[in-house]
Amino acid sequence: MIKVVVKFFVKEEMIEEFLTLADELVRQTRKEMGCLSYELVQDVDNPEIFIIIEEWGSEEALILHKASGHFTTLVPMMLQLTDKKETSVCKTLF
Amino acid sequence: MIKVVVKFFVKEEMIEEFLTLADELVRQTRKEMGCLSYELVQDVDNPEIFIIIEEWGSEEALILHKASGHFTTLVPMMLQLTDKKETSVCKTLF
Repeated sequence: MIKVVVKFFVKEEMIEEFLTLADELVRQTRKEMGCLSYELVQDVDNPEIFIIIEEWGSEEALILHKASGHFTTLVPMMLQLTDKKETSVCKTLF
Repeated sequence: MIKVVVKFFVKEEMIEEFLTLADELVRQTRKEMGCLSYELVQDVDNPEIFIIIEEWGSEEALILHKASGHFTTLVPMMLQLTDKKETSVCKTLF
């Protein structure tokens, strides 16, 4: 099982547009076979910070996700609305 | 439900010690009433990055956690082993 934590620092004036794209990305991604969970959360103290917390059943599932139409279309558009993105592909320790 | 994402940037030579403390923190925290989930993951590409992903049933549960003996003892010790820590207290959007 693979956990991915992606932190987006969204431009303040672009938050609405970002949420529209992210909503679609979450909806489409949850339909994918290997997707165990895929959630968007917002930092309550820093509202420009959004984090997607993902769980994948296998490395292949994550590779397929990154090659999917919704990922290759939506994520580049989301990145144009952000100042910075930090991605951590992780293994669970305990 | 409250989600907390805590990213630790651990000094390379301190990783072993950090893991010993984190293991104890995870073990004790999971016994707490309002703790829905509490997991430590490690970035596979940046092994000095560790993330604790937490889920709490209520704000009170999180407050009690931060006042607990294991938190007030272990977290300061863990912080001495890190260069930086980023904490996001979050609400789930979708």
